Amino acid sequence: MLTPNDPSLRSWIHVPANSDFPIQNIPFGIGSWNGEPAVPMTRIGDRAVDLSVLAEAGLLDGLGMERAALSAPRLNDLMAGGPQAVRALRRRLSELLRQDCATLRDDSALREDALLPAEQVRMLLPVAVGDYTDFYSSRQHAYNVGCMFRDPSNALLPNWLHLPVGYHGRASSIVVSGTPIRRPMGQYKPAPDAAPAFGPTRQLDMELEVAFITFEGNALGDRISTAEAEERIFGLVLFNDWSARDIQAWEYVPLGPFLGKNFGSSMSPWVVTLDALEPFRTASPVQDPPVLPYLRQQGQRHLDIALEAAIATADGNETVICRSNFKHLYWSMAQQLAHHTVNGCNVRCGDVMASGTISGDAEDSYGSLLELTWKGTKPLKLHDGTERKFLHDGDTLVMRGHCERDGVRIGFGEVRGTVLPALPFTEA
Amino acid sequence: MLTPNDPSLRSWIHVPANSDFPIQNIPFGIGSWNGEPAVPMTRIGDRAVDLSVLAEAGLLDGLGMERAALSAPRLNDLMAGGPQAVRALRRRLSELLRQDCATLRDDSALREDALLPAEQVRMLLPVAVGDYTDFYSSRQHAYNVGCMFRDPSNALLPNWLHLPVGYHGRASSIVVSGTPIRRPMGQYKPAPDAAPAFGPTRQLDMELEVAFITFEGNALGDRISTAEAEERIFGLVLFNDWSARDIQAWEYVPLGPFLGKNFGSSMSPWVVTLDALEPFRTASPVQDPPVLPYLRQQGQRHLDIALEAAIATADGNETVICRSNFKHLYWSMAQQLAHHTVNGCNVRCGDVMASGTISGDAEDSYGSLLELTWKGTKPLKLHDGTERKFLHDGDTLVMRGHCERDGVRIGFGEVRGTVLPALPFTEA
Repeated sequence: MLTPNDPSLRSWIHVPANSDFPIQNIPFGIGSWNGEPAVPMTRIGDRAVDLSVLAEAGLLDGLGMERAALSAPRLNDLMAGGPQAVRALRRRLSELLRQDCATLRDDSALREDALLPAEQVRMLLPVAVGDYTDFYSSRQHAYNVGCMFRDPSNALLPNWLHLPVGYHGRASSIVVSGTPIRRPMGQYKPAPDAAPAFGPTRQLDMELEVAFITFEGNALGDRISTAEAEERIFGLVLFNDWSARDIQAWEYVPLGPFLGKNFGSSMSPWVVTLDALEPFRTASPVQDPPVLPYLRQQGQRHLDIALEAAIATADGNETVICRSNFKHLYWSMAQQLAHHTVNGCNVRCGDVMASGTISGDAEDSYGSLLELTWKGTKPLKLHDGTERKFLHDGDTLVMRGHCERDGVRIGFGEVRGTVLPALPFTEA
Repeated sequence: MLTPNDPSLRSWIHVPANSDFPIQNIPFGIGSWNGEPAVPMTRIGDRAVDLSVLAEAGLLDGLGMERAALSAPRLNDLMAGGPQAVRALRRRLSELLRQDCATLRDDSALREDALLPAEQVRMLLPVAVGDYTDFYSSRQHAYNVGCMFRDPSNALLPNWLHLPVGYHGRASSIVVSGTPIRRPMGQYKPAPDAAPAFGPTRQLDMELEVAFITFEGNALGDRISTAEAEERIFGLVLFNDWSARDIQAWEYVPLGPFLGKNFGSSMSPWVVTLDALEPFRTASPVQDPPVLPYLRQQGQRHLDIALEAAIATADGNETVICRSNFKHLYWSMAQQLAHHTVNGCNVRCGDVMASGTISGDAEDSYGSLLELTWKGTKPLKLHDGTERKFLHDGDTLVMRGHCERDGVRIGFGEVRGTVLPALPFTEA
């Protein structure tokens, strides 16, 4: 049998050239059509496919997955079956969408119910997030930040090459692509010696990240090895970890970022499975100094995913401000998950773990405005001639990502969010 | 009508002297009796009261709360009604338990079903935790830590007096009292100039804290003022934020504590409502420098809750190692919640916000072993003559808390956890 990621597969559904969603992708998301309750969907070309309709017609029976899981308003129920059940589901969907499979292709009533114009489906947050962890795994990003805030000759902190530094973020404020982000208010220092002031952030930034979403992981007190880690990963999304640099700078010592980050993080709606990304593995970097045994890994644990970020101004036109790649990370997802659980911390179905800002070596591959404009000292010029040190109200930040090999392109679509003006503070 | 916290109230159920659970308390928890499904319960004296039985009998109708919420395996459903519904429920329960109310008192069949020996009820985590935030709001604790790790003349960091410093913790590893805690493994520096080593923590510590649990709070982008904050608080629990100091010290710069904390946090099972604690309000400290307008508050926003921590060795005998008080905090819960949301971060039903270690001025009021033994330089002597710098395998850490005024004692019961030896690491 052809595997879902076989390059020779074709569907009876037309897939436009350069679509992120050929039959080899089969991502999962949660969508609502025409005001109906939100349900699990997959996507192919310009069509969203309603899995609850296929399940109701009995086409997804026998996969070890309850029909209820295929009509739930979040993917967690579907993911509860673990990697084997999700693999079986993707295989079945791949079959149903293959050009030589008549079951759905020739059933016009069912087809009409199940196939929806993706543009008109309202996408929702794909999972109910348990815990959200943000790593800091791009060496260039950590180096750049160290240069700006400390000292270029000593930019990486002593622990950085020994462990994948990470911290806990806020799960409640993770939103799906398209949700506007209100400019946060908070405390910041107008000048190094000034008293703290309160007001809208003056340094609203994006962070170009990729996040993975977990299956049920380990019980409290147990751990997950690097060898076991990838089987605990359901899939990946694009992730914009919006940041207010001035608020963050004033608050973060000694316990880390808090209000500078937790006002919102945006996620792309389609979760691309790790299985779909299998053909795009690439070498993991040599790590020197060598890592401790619990962080050792075998094989190619990195993925070649081209990423870009753009600012769209109110006129709708975009300027690409950064081109990076998921392969630029120093620490792999397997190492992140092994580190996260080595102390017995339990990972649940629906946890989100983000990479941290992904910056490459080239100056135009830096994944944040902080780095791209070097703390605002080198403003970016946009298509309309205006400049940006940080984001303006009305700006829309768009991130995209895709892999390509052997004529197959597997993509993530996009994550976008528009900046709303701050909500004024009124004293009670 | 008598209010639930009227000191003259008496119940037809015997309440032992010095019980934490007189009729004025009426806390909420989740318990399982005899292997039955877990349900909401309250407690009076030595009895747990099964709310699902009372609801089934129709005794809790008309309060604006679905019967299903009163038989759910977590309090979130009951809390979804907000403070008015919970107040109505506590009032009804208070009536049913009053000595002059015959409804339950004289119905022996119902009484037998509903009243359970608290000792034999298996208590579970009271809420499904959304997000968990840990503050750092005791000035003496922040000062002590600053003295030990920085410099006594400059112990408080510049931001500390301007905002309630806090960070996001791990929700998945919050467990109910009685759950054993496995000694975490992790990276630490055996000596300042040594390479990092991997092994069981050598500095396992407790942190004496109180946490509050929220009702549904604010939508993303909105905020909660100090004046509104207390209406968004359901109740309080004792909280032990277990910490591995050596792991924490190596990992925490620059993004804050991670594996040094997220291997487990323990919560007492009975949530004591803010309404029950109303009679124990006490003055909030004068804050100098004055806080920014969004952190200003009126009235007595602190609570006088006596706290203690003890180590029980394997023989079961206890040594009290610390006596502190919730009133020692510099920042109030109202200020914490206003700060947390001032940037638009949304708070949901079931979020947990812990105080941070509560240390008073006196040396025996410090809320962590780190402080009590001053980084291990002044070991504590236990009842059996052994010494502790940090916790040993087999030690049980017990925390208790209560308020007392006008002959009424409202308490929290206890939170306890026993340290299990580390799980050995085996290479795959």
